[in-house]
Amino acid sequence: MSVNELSLGINTTWVVLTAAMILLMEGGFALLEAGFVRYKNSVNIIMKVFADITIGTLCFYLIGFGLMYGDDLGGVVGKSGFALSGNLSHLDIPIGLETFWLFQCAFVIAVISIVSGAVAERINFRAYLLYAILMTTFIYPIAGHWIWGGGWISKLGMLDFAGSAVIHALGGFSALAAAIMIGPRKGKFTKNGISSVSLPSNLPLASVGAFLLWFGWFGFNAGSTLSATDVRIGHIAIVTMLSAAAGGAATLFYTLFRYNRSDAPSVINGSLAGLVGITAGCAFVNTPSAIFIGAVSGLLMMAATNWLEARQIDDPVGAFPVHAASGIWGTLAVGLFSTDGGVFTGGGWTLLGIQLLGLIALCAWGFVTTWIGLKVISLVVPLRSTEEEEEVGLDISYHGIMAAHQAPEFIEYENYYAEVKEKAADS
Amino acid sequence: MSVNELSLGINTTWVVLTAAMILLMEGGFALLEAGFVRYKNSVNIIMKVFADITIGTLCFYLIGFGLMYGDDLGGVVGKSGFALSGNLSHLDIPIGLETFWLFQCAFVIAVISIVSGAVAERINFRAYLLYAILMTTFIYPIAGHWIWGGGWISKLGMLDFAGSAVIHALGGFSALAAAIMIGPRKGKFTKNGISSVSLPSNLPLASVGAFLLWFGWFGFNAGSTLSATDVRIGHIAIVTMLSAAAGGAATLFYTLFRYNRSDAPSVINGSLAGLVGITAGCAFVNTPSAIFIGAVSGLLMMAATNWLEARQIDDPVGAFPVHAASGIWGTLAVGLFSTDGGVFTGGGWTLLGIQLLGLIALCAWGFVTTWIGLKVISLVVPLRSTEEEEEVGLDISYHGIMAAHQAPEFIEYENYYAEVKEKAADS
Amino acid sequence: MSVNELSLGINTTWVVLTAAMILLMEGGFALLEAGFVRYKNSVNIIMKVFADITIGTLCFYLIGFGLMYGDDLGGVVGKSGFALSGNLSHLDIPIGLETFWLFQCAFVIAVISIVSGAVAERINFRAYLLYAILMTTFIYPIAGHWIWGGGWISKLGMLDFAGSAVIHALGGFSALAAAIMIGPRKGKFTKNGISSVSLPSNLPLASVGAFLLWFGWFGFNAGSTLSATDVRIGHIAIVTMLSAAAGGAATLFYTLFRYNRSDAPSVINGSLAGLVGITAGCAFVNTPSAIFIGAVSGLLMMAATNWLEARQIDDPVGAFPVHAASGIWGTLAVGLFSTDGGVFTGGGWTLLGIQLLGLIALCAWGFVTTWIGLKVISLVVPLRSTEEEEEVGLDISYHGIMAAHQAPEFIEYENYYAEVKEKAADS
Repeated sequence: MSVNELSLGINTTWVVLTAAMILLMEGGFALLEAGFVRYKNSVNIIMKVFADITIGTLCFYLIGFGLMYGDDLGGVVGKSGFALSGNLSHLDIPIGLETFWLFQCAFVIAVISIVSGAVAERINFRAYLLYAILMTTFIYPIAGHWIWGGGWISKLGMLDFAGSAVIHALGGFSALAAAIMIGPRKGKFTKNGISSVSLPSNLPLASVGAFLLWFGWFGFNAGSTLSATDVRIGHIAIVTMLSAAAGGAATLFYTLFRYNRSDAPSVINGSLAGLVGITAGCAFVNTPSAIFIGAVSGLLMMAATNWLEARQIDDPVGAFPVHAASGIWGTLAVGLFSTDGGVFTGGGWTLLGIQLLGLIALCAWGFVTTWIGLKVISLVVPLRSTEEEEEVGLDISYHGIMAAHQAPEFIEYENYYAEVKEKAADS
Repeated sequence: MSVNELSLGINTTWVVLTAAMILLMEGGFALLEAGFVRYKNSVNIIMKVFADITIGTLCFYLIGFGLMYGDDLGGVVGKSGFALSGNLSHLDIPIGLETFWLFQCAFVIAVISIVSGAVAERINFRAYLLYAILMTTFIYPIAGHWIWGGGWISKLGMLDFAGSAVIHALGGFSALAAAIMIGPRKGKFTKNGISSVSLPSNLPLASVGAFLLWFGWFGFNAGSTLSATDVRIGHIAIVTMLSAAAGGAATLFYTLFRYNRSDAPSVINGSLAGLVGITAGCAFVNTPSAIFIGAVSGLLMMAATNWLEARQIDDPVGAFPVHAASGIWGTLAVGLFSTDGGVFTGGGWTLLGIQLLGLIALCAWGFVTTWIGLKVISLVVPLRSTEEEEEVGLDISYHGIMAAHQAPEFIEYENYYAEVKEKAADS
Repeated sequence: MSVNELSLGINTTWVVLTAAMILLMEGGFALLEAGFVRYKNSVNIIMKVFADITIGTLCFYLIGFGLMYGDDLGGVVGKSGFALSGNLSHLDIPIGLETFWLFQCAFVIAVISIVSGAVAERINFRAYLLYAILMTTFIYPIAGHWIWGGGWISKLGMLDFAGSAVIHALGGFSALAAAIMIGPRKGKFTKNGISSVSLPSNLPLASVGAFLLWFGWFGFNAGSTLSATDVRIGHIAIVTMLSAAAGGAATLFYTLFRYNRSDAPSVINGSLAGLVGITAGCAFVNTPSAIFIGAVSGLLMMAATNWLEARQIDDPVGAFPVHAASGIWGTLAVGLFSTDGGVFTGGGWTLLGIQLLGLIALCAWGFVTTWIGLKVISLVVPLRSTEEEEEVGLDISYHGIMAAHQAPEFIEYENYYAEVKEKAADS
């Protein structure tokens, strides 16, 4: 056994374990979203996440990875590595290619899962499948190439350690475009523009999701070192924890003093916002900055929620507030607090400018390609559920089943389906 | 600190962490099954899994491990290592004995948990406890000795890396024997043989289970290297992911185009089938083969479900379709696609023949010993719940409790028990 | 790459991964408790755990860690390391300071989460927040200093490897003090002192929690080595598994033969009791002792439950029976069975005496400081919910929401709140 073999082994196991943790975050996304949406749409959103994992993985394997990490073509896109074949010798990684691929695959699935929340309860399931293919094959991989694959943004020197910008802000702006184009759920805004509330189907279930996400985030951020001997791992883990804690604590106290009750969905999303906010800077900022970044992330998430509601944009589980608002803030915060080059640490304005430029490019790319992509998809299948499908619920409409059944009888399936549709139409 | 100490340390932590992931799969089994069965039996199936973990662990410690990994006796059974004592110096493992034991313990519990699904909603709880003892003490350990403990199948050269055959196919055929002997649930098949559907109690809960299983499978397959410096780890992890994705995608598209709705239980089981299918070959086949193996696993799972229904065999959560059908296919697929010795990779027919022979032995062993074992158990306690117990639900009958209560009152326990039994009998 | 760098890397990843597992245990606590309490209080208890994680983390960062691991002041308290600054060079750890902090942070959150269960369903939420601050800032850190931070108990030679005493017994006695002071839930004990049962809101949810706790416990115990090359890791993991299995099996068989039904909450808590019981001795006792310790833990948990009920002390989720009873037993068991110094292994009575002395100090400290602390807090906010809040449920009262909603409509939030309060008041 040589030291080099050991080193490769420890890096490989570290990345495989953290990749598995990130993949478990899909369970987190699914359950968080299923718990937050209305009961009649909870199976549908879990199935969307299953589509993300299954179809997204295959698309990224066949094409996406090559576009993202293939041999660079003009700083814009990769051109090798499709189906993991072709020349990838330019990759400078301390692990094997396949291990690297697995980790990157976990990331692309996270991006598309962000969007799934914003279009919840009303997107046509087939349209969603096509969009998921588009996102995992083209939209994210190309943007990913720019910053992590040796493309033009990386050459500028933008810092986005584990993806506040390219995962969360891009995902969040794609979510925004989709939410706007598809329009609000029926009944969400009254005629005079007042927003109403859809009660979460199951908060304990959403909490299961939040805990799985929090757990996976240690893999997301610390695993992004790709090397087990990276001396920053402990630091990355601690600032991840502190920022999440600050985001949750800020929303807990804010809602407690403002509304005289600690609002559970806000505290959950506030913790997640803290996690999103530190994702760019976890390797670059110190612990007090992490607490500040997290607390601001939590409060920004709440402000962004109100901002969306005032504009009558319907984002059922808060994809934009959690991922885009905190992602933007977290990316800019690197420019402010990075121990090397931050505005407040004596580094001047250069880094902040680069962060801003990169952010604009990534957010615009996500928004515009999603917009165009959905327009094209709408030529093939309707983007939106029919009124009846939405009324009955997407679980029955697209999956022929409801989330839970307490009646003990056996039943003929087709009868059940007809009966429930009728019942739902009546109510 | 020497390189050897480091090497032992990294192997130990790798195996302990992956063993913990596999043990978390018990949570996966419990919740998947609890979500799939009818509401009135969901606590019971969780309790069965608790019995698997608690009693199974103790049985495997006292006897099973010795039979499986003890000093070989004629290629048939081990004869040392009971309660971890006696001579085990023949074991050639890169980790300590206790670490090795923990990993193997996680495997045996998985086998018995496979059977728990097939007998759901109607087995007598005491009979199940006796069967769980039988399985974890004798049935699996002896078969395990044949292939992994230096017994006769291993000498033939059968390849079953993480157990498509000895875990899943054997478990699935044991499940089949038990399901046949115990008979279908009351009401599952009408007099003229038409199968009816029992609605799953809680699909989001089943999804929690599926995500935990998927996560744990990375431990199951990649951890089976037992060595953190095994260069195959990254490869094993990626093919595991691709096969699962292909299994889920195949069932998602199949049900979408065939039935015009993506069937949630099928997609969940399809992903799991993809995981089962790649378990034998994860160290031996390449990535395109993995995708093919996974997709076929998903579709075979659906075909096997129909096959069982047509024969009026009742397997409430699909233990045979997911574990036996995909397990057989996955084991044979090694003979077809193994990069060293597969039929389609120029290796001739020898390996396929060996795989087939080993499979027949393992499946027959599982089926026959379960059949005989249950016959013997039936001399002591009835195998099946009484009609009343089944009607009322096993939760009330065997555990005196229901899965969930929304009523806020306090209540005297005995009253509650009587009341619920009455109510259930009325309905 | 040098051997020393590798060694640091493997230790760091090991501790970060196990810390993440322990933090996932918070999800376990939240869901176990939410599943065990009555439906109307399940969001509240999850929010308490969120408060533990978010606020507790910040308090421990700012002050607690310094008191626990700072430079020793007279064997009583630490005096440096607040906000991770100041001299901490006396710490002799094989990992970086920040990694060490993260692991310790996961521990302090576990302690406060133990208490959250005992005060469930009736504590005023603001009072709980203040108490959580007290516990994570002062109570646990100071006691922790005595035994793990170089204080007076550690100098005596007490053995408490991963905290049966300082985590579980101290947490359990703090829980007891809080439960006594706040008094039983309305309706729990009838006028003539008979205890009634509150039905668990959701046992499958509680099971999710139990499985997450079991998984995390491998991190808790084995991670406490802080070093991946500690040769005891495999041993620690196996005895953890055996003790948990024995605790669960003991309660399964006990309730089966005594009450003719395997009681699900008892089996769940019995497994957890087995885990608590082995936490002190996991590095010191052999496998047969571990099985004995676990089995006794399970049975003691049941006895302690009855003891509390007879004294009309209301501990809704069994915090004292699981954590204090098993924690005490586990700590004393080290004195009985430790392979080096145990009474039954020829070591005489010294170790047992030290264990007992340390236990008394830690339990008394937890009980008394909690008692005084709550008295002081009661000068600021009432400790207990009003009768109406308790009747309506803490979910509505403190968080303005219910755990689950199956109705599909949109609704104006304030209307909903008023309506549910009314409905609850009516019932």
